[in-house]
Order: sequence, then structure tokens, then C-alpha cells
Amino acid sequence: MNMEIGDTNRQIVLAQRPNGELGPECFSDNEAALPNLEPNQILVKTTWLSIDPSIRVWMQEDTYLPAIELDSVIRCFGLGIVVASNNPTYAVGSTVTGFVGWQEYAVLGPEARVIPDALTPETTLSVLGPTGLTAYFGMLKIGKPTEGESVLVSGAAGATGSIAGQIARIHGCRVVGLAGTDQKCQRLRDTYQFDAAINYRTEDVSAAISKHCPNGINVFFDNVGGSILEAGIQNLALHGRIVLCGAISSYNTSSPHPGPKNLSRLISMRGTMQGFIVLDYLDEAPQAISQLASWVANGELAFDTDVTDGLENAPGALRRLFDGANRGKTLVRL
Amino acid sequence: MNMEIGDTNRQIVLAQRPNGELGPECFSDNEAALPNLEPNQILVKTTWLSIDPSIRVWMQEDTYLPAIELDSVIRCFGLGIVVASNNPTYAVGSTVTGFVGWQEYAVLGPEARVIPDALTPETTLSVLGPTGLTAYFGMLKIGKPTEGESVLVSGAAGATGSIAGQIARIHGCRVVGLAGTDQKCQRLRDTYQFDAAINYRTEDVSAAISKHCPNGINVFFDNVGGSILEAGIQNLALHGRIVLCGAISSYNTSSPHPGPKNLSRLISMRGTMQGFIVLDYLDEAPQAISQLASWVANGELAFDTDVTDGLENAPGALRRLFDGANRGKTLVRL
Repeated sequence: MNMEIGDTNRQIVLAQRPNGELGPECFSDNEAALPNLEPNQILVKTTWLSIDPSIRVWMQEDTYLPAIELDSVIRCFGLGIVVASNNPTYAVGSTVTGFVGWQEYAVLGPEARVIPDALTPETTLSVLGPTGLTAYFGMLKIGKPTEGESVLVSGAAGATGSIAGQIARIHGCRVVGLAGTDQKCQRLRDTYQFDAAINYRTEDVSAAISKHCPNGINVFFDNVGGSILEAGIQNLALHGRIVLCGAISSYNTSSPHPGPKNLSRLISMRGTMQGFIVLDYLDEAPQAISQLASWVANGELAFDTDVTDGLENAPGALRRLFDGANRGKTLVRL
Repeated sequence: MNMEIGDTNRQIVLAQRPNGELGPECFSDNEAALPNLEPNQILVKTTWLSIDPSIRVWMQEDTYLPAIELDSVIRCFGLGIVVASNNPTYAVGSTVTGFVGWQEYAVLGPEARVIPDALTPETTLSVLGPTGLTAYFGMLKIGKPTEGESVLVSGAAGATGSIAGQIARIHGCRVVGLAGTDQKCQRLRDTYQFDAAINYRTEDVSAAISKHCPNGINVFFDNVGGSILEAGIQNLALHGRIVLCGAISSYNTSSPHPGPKNLSRLISMRGTMQGFIVLDYLDEAPQAISQLASWVANGELAFDTDVTDGLENAPGALRRLFDGANRGKTLVRL
């Protein structure tokens, strides 16, 4: 690892808010001076970025976090090496995670988390990172699957969906995944050991769910929204729980799609649909990370990473999340 | 009360399933022989019918109850007088409630509930009947309002909505109701003591909700669905709960309307949307009825009934639920 500190800080900033497709006009390059550290702050040289659909949301509008300001660095979780420290908790040379942003150097405060040397950056940022924790808390706190139940996961080959489905499988559930290519579907069955996989681009989704889950779905972990959500509601079992994790089908549109036409099925099936944000569960992250690491270590939990090199390729890596070209967790290595 | 038993049983049966508007072609008159009683059964002379939107649902399709069969009596809750009894629990002459159906005489089993003479049929079938219990359990078990929260009710001048809003007000909430005429809105404020009322036909619903609940809605008790549900979601507060009680906007259509476009707000607000059916809570009905009766007795809970005379006018009374012409609980007196 090159620990030398450069003279300037190369950044990618928000040039304009996206409207529909996420075009190159949304981003611009910037060179800033290296920031000065205040007491208790650390300077981190960014080495890895976690590319998540939520970045698209933050670029557009205020939600659970304020929107990224125009001409500001694109907000992004990631990993880096401490190159200067005003806080004795963080030794120069240690690895930390935090909201580093799309830039070569970031100033972090005491929210930075030191990562043990035994963990690779890929593991830290995928199965043990925000997407793994999102899967963990969403499935267990909101979905609450119990042994023998049927669980449907959309975006199942993605970083969150693949972990969510495996957690349900580990809890003794029958797990069915939705993905957009036959190759991804095969991976769901072979690598992630889902019981069945449905290609939502080529199959009649509602009919296929009904075939694989003839008694209905007890838990639906939905990353997609739109017509996929509608198909899941159509197959909901009595007292079924729908975990609203994401709505990737709606992020990349200038005007939102209509919602599911069959919400009244939630009444007859006494169903629940609940949204959540992983940030609400950070207090419990240490136990969750231990549990996830234990499943990884004993071979029950598989994960994939999809790595792109170079800060300048971060916009392209983000775009690929929305056309389904990624496989597993999308990361950028600087 | 005329206790004489007639020779025949005049009935209204399901002639065809509705498709869109609820036309007269859906119903036909029938004359059946008086049924014979099996052991433990009672013969009830129907005196009052509870006209509920769910009848429209039962006419159309299987949901939480099987659809009404073609050429069978229209399923309907109501009240009657026992005129013959094969069960010592039910004395001839006593008043009972149960699923009597749209007919002059009904055979009921041990599910019939004896009503104290002190209660009027109007009270029994409205605030202490299925709609009052629906309001009670939906608001308290699903909505769980706490003191100081803001509660929105749609269909607020109806039999369920008017009770639901008052229960929230009794629990110390700020209550805003949606109704379709200025007269109904005035009734919400004056008789039911809502804090504010919005005419959804003449006002910008989302803007009006935002004006009356600037910090958002903590509980939304929705009887309507569609664009009203969308406006409620738009104004949901953090951790807001949406009680899906009904979707009257969608019952009377041949093809369902699109759902709300903004379901992803449930994610950023960590919101919950939950459907329920009052039948699931019947074990707790006695305590609920006591509580509702106590609020009525001490003047905290007002209710209205909208009474039509004659079995032959039941189809028209049902239709009026869907054009908003009713006020309070719709009943038919035979």
C-alpha cells in the first residue's frame, strides 16, 4: 500500500441531479486541496468504494438522508487507510470504513470503524458491510421467517438479495429468487442454494411464483418494486410479510411508475408491508457481523463481488446496477 | 313485532357477478319454502340488515370468505327475532344477530348472538356491530395511536371511519378526516369532534393533509385506497402506520386502478402498511363492545345511522355506499 500523501484530492462531484437515466452529465471531476484536520479527525486515503443503489437516491432528493448538495463529492460508503490522525484510537496505517465519498482522500470523524487485518476489503464491504447488514436486519427483523415458510426474494442475484435469501435458507425456509438472466438464475440455485429461481424477463412472474410456492409466500424481500411487487402481493399467503428494502425499478425514471393494483389483497390476506433503513440498526451491527462472518466461515453463506478499477469508473459502475449487468456486490478499487 | 310465521321466504339472490357498476341485473327476487330446522338450529325472522361494502366484494370473488354462489341469497349481517328454536340457549322472541342474508327468514346455528333488550337495533348494528368493531380493532390493534400523534381517516363520515377517528380522538390524538361533501366535513368537525376535515372532491388532498398535519401523519386509517392512499403515503411521518381497512375506490371497477406511485416512501419513512379483517378478533369482541358502549354512554362517541325500509330496497342501499350518498351506518329495516 502506497502511504505517500499526494498534493491534491481528486474528486467526483454532483454536477446536476439525475432525471431519468443516470447520464455522465450528472458527474464532474474536481481537484481540491487536501483538507486540514480538526481535533479528533483522521485523514483516510480511499482504497475501495461500495457502489449502492442508494447513491442514486441521494443524488436526487432528500429522503432518510439529505440529498447530496450540488458540486459536492458523491456520498459513498467505502474503505481506506489512515494516513494522518488527530485521534489516538486510529493509528496511521490502519484500515477503516466510513462515508469516504468519491474522492482520493476523506476526512472522517469518530464514526469511522477500524477493520481487523484478517478481513479482506471485499468481505468487509460486501457480506459484512452495508448490503450484508441490510439483508440481515431486513430479513430477520422485518421478514421474521420461520422454519418451513416460503420466502421470495427479488433482485436475488444482487449484493443484498443474495445474502437475504441465504439467511432465510439457513433459517429453514424454502427460498425462491427472481433475477434477470438465466445465468444469474443458475447461480441462485448452484452457488446460493436457493430452492428455485425465476427469470423475470422471460417468465410469467406471478404464474411462476405460484408454481414454486403453491401455498403462497410467507415473506417477500423486495428490492425492486413495480410489477415485481405486484406479482409478489398476488401470491401472498395469509399473514404474509413484505419487506420493502428497495425499489430499484423506480429509481431511474423521471416520472414514477404506477404502484401495484392489488394492494387490497393485503386486506384479505392480513398482510403487512414494511419499509426499513439499515442505519436504524447500527447498534446491533457488531453481533450481526459476527453472525454473518460465522456463516461465511462454515460455508453456509456465499457471496460475490464485482470489482471495477479506478475512481473515474465509479459513475459507470453505479450505472451498471440499474441495467442488471452487475453480479453480487459492486465495488470500485482505487 | 309480528311474530306470525309466513308461508314462504322472500329472498334476494345473486343473479350475476358485478363487473364495474353494481347494476340491478346482479340481483333477482326469489320465493323459497320455509326451511326445516335441524337440531340446535333456530329460525329467525329478519328485521334489520347491515349494509356493508364487503357485500360487494363477496358478490364478486373469493377473498377471506368464499364468494356468494350464483342464485344464492346475498350474504349479509343483520338482526332478527327468533320465531322457532331447536336450541334451548335461544328463546323464541329473543333478538339475535348473525349472517341472516337478504331474506325474510334465516336459519342460524350456535354462532347467533343474543342481544340485550336494552340495546336498539340501530346501536347493535352500527357502533356495537361489525363496523364499530372494525374501527375499534383496526385503530387500536393495527394503528396503535398514542397521545399527541396525528391520525388521518379516509371515508371518515362512513360507519367505520367516523368511529375510528373518534377512538383516536379519545386516545388523545389530533384527528383529520377526509369526506366527499362540505356537509359531511362539517359533521366530522361538529358531531364527531375531529380537529379538521378535508373535502377530497374539492381540495388538493395532499396539500391539505400537509397543512393540517405539518409534521406528517402517524396513523392513517384508510377505507378508500387509490389516489387517497397515495396522498396519505406522501404525508406519512417517520414510523407511520397505515391501516388498510378497505379500498372502496376499487370495488366498483371492472379493472383495478393503478396503485400508489410512492410506495418507496414507506422505505425512507420506515412505514408499515397492514391489512386486517375484523373476523380475526371476534374472541375479543365482548370487551370491545363493552368499551364502545361505555364511550357511547358517556357521550364521547357519536354515531349516525342511515335507514332504508323494505327488503326490496337493499340493492339500492348497497349502491348508495359507493356513490357517497350515505351518512353513517347504512341499514335496511324489513
